[in-house]
Amino acid sequence: MTTAKKILLSEEEIPRQWYNILPDLPTPLQPPLHPGTGQPVGPDDLAPIFPMPLIEQEVSDQRWIDIPEGVMEKYFLWRPTPLVRARRLEEHLGTPARIYFKNEGVSPPGSHKPNTAVPQAYYNKISGVKKLTTETGAGQWGSALSFACNLFGLECQVFMVRISYEQKPYRRVMMQSWGANCIPSPSDQTEAGRKILQENPDSPGSLGIAISEAVEAAVTDPETKYSLGSVLNHVLLHQTIIGLEAQKQLAKIGESPDVVIGCAGGGSNFAGLALPFVREKIEGKPLEIYAVEPSSCPTMTRGPFAYDFGDTVMMTPLLPMHTLGHSFVPAPIHAGGLRYHGMAPIVSQLILDNLVTPVAIPQLETFQAGITFARTEGFISAPETNHAVAMVIREALKAKEEGKERVILFNWSGHGLVDMSAYEAYMEGRLSDHDLPEEEIKRALQDIETLPKPKA
Amino acid sequence: MTTAKKILLSEEEIPRQWYNILPDLPTPLQPPLHPGTGQPVGPDDLAPIFPMPLIEQEVSDQRWIDIPEGVMEKYFLWRPTPLVRARRLEEHLGTPARIYFKNEGVSPPGSHKPNTAVPQAYYNKISGVKKLTTETGAGQWGSALSFACNLFGLECQVFMVRISYEQKPYRRVMMQSWGANCIPSPSDQTEAGRKILQENPDSPGSLGIAISEAVEAAVTDPETKYSLGSVLNHVLLHQTIIGLEAQKQLAKIGESPDVVIGCAGGGSNFAGLALPFVREKIEGKPLEIYAVEPSSCPTMTRGPFAYDFGDTVMMTPLLPMHTLGHSFVPAPIHAGGLRYHGMAPIVSQLILDNLVTPVAIPQLETFQAGITFARTEGFISAPETNHAVAMVIREALKAKEEGKERVILFNWSGHGLVDMSAYEAYMEGRLSDHDLPEEEIKRALQDIETLPKPKA
Repeated sequence: MTTAKKILLSEEEIPRQWYNILPDLPTPLQPPLHPGTGQPVGPDDLAPIFPMPLIEQEVSDQRWIDIPEGVMEKYFLWRPTPLVRARRLEEHLGTPARIYFKNEGVSPPGSHKPNTAVPQAYYNKISGVKKLTTETGAGQWGSALSFACNLFGLECQVFMVRISYEQKPYRRVMMQSWGANCIPSPSDQTEAGRKILQENPDSPGSLGIAISEAVEAAVTDPETKYSLGSVLNHVLLHQTIIGLEAQKQLAKIGESPDVVIGCAGGGSNFAGLALPFVREKIEGKPLEIYAVEPSSCPTMTRGPFAYDFGDTVMMTPLLPMHTLGHSFVPAPIHAGGLRYHGMAPIVSQLILDNLVTPVAIPQLETFQAGITFARTEGFISAPETNHAVAMVIREALKAKEEGKERVILFNWSGHGLVDMSAYEAYMEGRLSDHDLPEEEIKRALQDIETLPKPKA
Repeated sequence: MTTAKKILLSEEEIPRQWYNILPDLPTPLQPPLHPGTGQPVGPDDLAPIFPMPLIEQEVSDQRWIDIPEGVMEKYFLWRPTPLVRARRLEEHLGTPARIYFKNEGVSPPGSHKPNTAVPQAYYNKISGVKKLTTETGAGQWGSALSFACNLFGLECQVFMVRISYEQKPYRRVMMQSWGANCIPSPSDQTEAGRKILQENPDSPGSLGIAISEAVEAAVTDPETKYSLGSVLNHVLLHQTIIGLEAQKQLAKIGESPDVVIGCAGGGSNFAGLALPFVREKIEGKPLEIYAVEPSSCPTMTRGPFAYDFGDTVMMTPLLPMHTLGHSFVPAPIHAGGLRYHGMAPIVSQLILDNLVTPVAIPQLETFQAGITFARTEGFISAPETNHAVAMVIREALKAKEEGKERVILFNWSGHGLVDMSAYEAYMEGRLSDHDLPEEEIKRALQDIETLPKPKA
């Protein structure tokens, strides 16, 4: 144990491989299914959407996958990221726990998202792709992909939910500053968009519509592919750089975590930190690993494990995952990145196997935690990240109650400097927890009753 | 020379003293004058406004001043900051120059400002002060002081120019998140504010009015002091941590700069990087040191060296500096931090002594530079910082033309993530250079004709 506030790695010390958990999973993942045939989806089905290197990573059985030099060089723009001891938070809570966080907010777009945006752009580039499309809600993913495409000279087209496009101009302008083409969705540039606009010219848009537009724009142009910011195996793979760096940093000071915490929307930042530690847990190390979700969108804690569409418009393959049903509409909480009906299949399977423990936390507690963090550690967290912070505080106080010297590690997945309106609403008492009646979940789950069922 | 992208210092390697250039100045500074008596201002005159340790630093003849442990501990929240090789920018420009920047955007408020906000809060705290007041325009300084006061349990009252308070809510909410009391100015909390509101209830406010309010709130309460974010000697002193770290980082890789560049509004971020290198220049090292200002507010390049008020309402002592006259109203450029009529006396004196070269750059060139930087190095700069970036690009292209391998060092003083509306206006072609007619300067300078004159 050191007295340092920040534990840094030099660029020479950065891990040169990602960790692929697929070969280590105690229970293998069940395959995605074709929505029409109900049969497992093969590489050919995905080829119109993703380039082959990413399709291969999606199903790879290799434990370690080399990070290409072309990706490393871009990672060095902001990686390795600091591991920080949250001493002032510890003191404020009066806890015997030692709290460390991985600061992923230092990337140019301000979150962990570029960890996968950069390799996705890279593999598309070397596969001859000229342009990537994607959808974005609040804009975290869209800005990360814009940043990454610009680094490799790829065109980038981001379909941004129209109401966010109008209400949250900052992320849109970030995308444009990196040279991306950011379009309010529904747009007149796709069949799907035109159809919606014909029915309702004033449609505020939705993530479902934006996905339809982005996928259509990709499959109708041979030089264009589509890019996804979470959920899939290859996305989680790229994010493991977070946990692998953290392992090296903790080893440097002779620390080892007892508790690992991340917030989870689609699952990528959580898995990015947690998967290398899940491996330690599989190998026998006692370790608690918490994935934290909003209580108003309780995919992991109240959704069944089922086959469901990844999107709301039923275009994607069926994925085996914890889900609230693809028609579930989460309450308008400010943690936009956690408003997703499903969960990454890898994370879902780890929950089934008792390797990861899901926790749901209400919105007000998360903002209270964010204010506590800002006033102790200084940094203002993204609303999503505040879910992790809230769980850290719960665990630190538990350690205090029990008088235990626990080591808590969490992923500070991004800063909240472009989310200040959410803090304003919180401080002015305008936010609520959006309690979720059981009936609403039941209603949404009816939509998936007729779909194939995964093995128990 | 290394191949690393980032040169990091460990916390053990951080400098433990600030550099005070006063004893090394070839020409000693002329004293500030009392506006009423015209006599040099003494410590007693300043005591109602500043605590004694800061007044002592303002006139200290010690070259090295220890950084107190209580400040170091807070610096470690974000310091040492990375020194980054801007390889992608170099490649884009095709320059033989090697470009390094000091990334001061990693602090919680996102700029260099907390380097002085933290020690100012510290010295006030140990002097028994309970509350600090200040003024802020766009909010960079106000948010930094809010952050710092919170760390030391001081109350913080920020008078924010009303039009900014309403138009730029993000920085205001940042201040509130750190627990500060941010008030639109003119307010009904001071005599000065009430007087303005009586005359014009809809007054949009101005920095001059906000200063009056902040100073009044400080001098009328024995437990309250006032805090200033630039211009004064002690502020520049605290910022030298930037240049001192950079010297150590460059030494680690065997580099030494030929050119040092910073943007200059009041002069603090520029001086923070440059002063330790000015010392090397005084000792004989050949070195070009550029202070960059907006061509629409050309204090250093077109303003005379004169005694003038630091504020627009003629309350402060008279300072010997380059000035456009205290009644000069800069055009509404987006680099709010550079819209100041004067310049730090230290920087002004260094210009007179040919140790620092001032340069003025028009707004459009600075935003073009910012876009180039964002698309090469990834990071989106504050509009102020873009002035430094623009000068770096000029120098890098000059090195290319001359075929010279020059080493350029600059201060990346802050990120622009809460200034995206400025980028939007630029990309939509809504910005202009705001060329400044000679008559406007002449008119503003008439106001200082009757003031005492400094020695030539």
